[in-house]
Amino acid sequence: MSGGKIYGVGLGPGDPDLMSVRADRLLRNARHVAFFRKPGRTGQARKIVNGMIPGDAIEFAMEYPVTTEIPVTDPRYNELLSVFYEDCAAHLKTLTENGEDVVVLCEGDPFFYGSFMHLYNRLRDISKVEVVPAITGMSGAWTATGDPITWGDDVLTVLVGTLSEDTLTERMTQTDALVVMKIGRNFDKVKRALKRADLYDRAWIVEYAQMPNQRVCKLSDNCEGITPYFSIILVHGQGRRP
Amino acid sequence: MSGGKIYGVGLGPGDPDLMSVRADRLLRNARHVAFFRKPGRTGQARKIVNGMIPGDAIEFAMEYPVTTEIPVTDPRYNELLSVFYEDCAAHLKTLTENGEDVVVLCEGDPFFYGSFMHLYNRLRDISKVEVVPAITGMSGAWTATGDPITWGDDVLTVLVGTLSEDTLTERMTQTDALVVMKIGRNFDKVKRALKRADLYDRAWIVEYAQMPNQRVCKLSDNCEGITPYFSIILVHGQGRRP
Repeated sequence: MSGGKIYGVGLGPGDPDLMSVRADRLLRNARHVAFFRKPGRTGQARKIVNGMIPGDAIEFAMEYPVTTEIPVTDPRYNELLSVFYEDCAAHLKTLTENGEDVVVLCEGDPFFYGSFMHLYNRLRDISKVEVVPAITGMSGAWTATGDPITWGDDVLTVLVGTLSEDTLTERMTQTDALVVMKIGRNFDKVKRALKRADLYDRAWIVEYAQMPNQRVCKLSDNCEGITPYFSIILVHGQGRRP
Repeated sequence: MSGGKIYGVGLGPGDPDLMSVRADRLLRNARHVAFFRKPGRTGQARKIVNGMIPGDAIEFAMEYPVTTEIPVTDPRYNELLSVFYEDCAAHLKTLTENGEDVVVLCEGDPFFYGSFMHLYNRLRDISKVEVVPAITGMSGAWTATGDPITWGDDVLTVLVGTLSEDTLTERMTQTDALVVMKIGRNFDKVKRALKRADLYDRAWIVEYAQMPNQRVCKLSDNCEGITPYFSIILVHGQGRRP
């Protein structure tokens, strides 16, 4: 494992002032910067570091071959993504073999539902890889609501909107505090589950947490204009508080 | 609400290099620094910022009147802590009325099981308060294991060791990925619950995550010398990975 190093750098919720000191330093000194994006878009991670990475850094945009065109249950979905991650990992490995360090931009925290994990698992045994943890999107979101998420003995459950409505409802019923990620096209299903679990009236939605266009709203209010694609839903715990 | 401002500053898991750029700036320019500790101790939060805060900063040590001498179920526990938090909040409020800003040190993320929340709820309507989110201790811990915590549709459950063994077991059985905080004197109970939930062989313990004395160990290995007081237990999710 000689050669360069791959850094999976967590960017946090999106405000450069909330990046770690280590992430800030790695970004400002980066020579190679890799990031995921949908074809034809700038990409959220790349947008966040605008003005931070050196102007002459060499960028490597890793464009998803598929996002929502094929359902995740279709075997072709996994096959296409698997080939894609192999190709990306091979490119990063080649860079390190040439002695180059590469910074891979990761929204939120790299090891918490992150795409980087798929590169990490392919590279960890053949390249030097370092992961820089970050403030999770959900921390950014609960801070934005101005209310603590968990108190005392509260149980916190984190769910993804891709689960079935029955599973969502069951898990919601069993928890004190709740975070729902990956809402997107599952928004209506998540709202139905919240209602069935009797949590809808306590639920908040935060869009673009800690970014200039941040929006914070109680779901039961009229959240006009809030779109679910960069949003997190929260229900605060009610535990012991002396 | 004229006057100074109270900053609840998350310090993250303990490595100054993993603090946010904002936390770093606030600490290095602080004039008043408040922090919780047990009587007679330096306090973990205060230790973390050693060498970062200005030498002439005015320090306010908030010493818990009780930690484990009285069980949390005893009504006196809540009463003693309530008076304590009132007193601390009153002191911070006086400082802001005199135009002073105060940085309150918070281990981990302030709104995630943090003591600062008890001051925050007493001050939020009468003083200017700003909360700076941070990398959670659990992010520091799962990064230390070198394995991602959640994949695909994984459900993550966060539990505290103070729950009953039956509740711990039940919740552990229902989740894909698991974090257990506040282990301390609940260590044996948590281990029994992990065994009953058939998760013991997949559980890791991380002590002093992201600090120089960090220890990472599988529970089923011989984790000699690891103490549970600054430890987090983790079980990694096994979800979809193309």
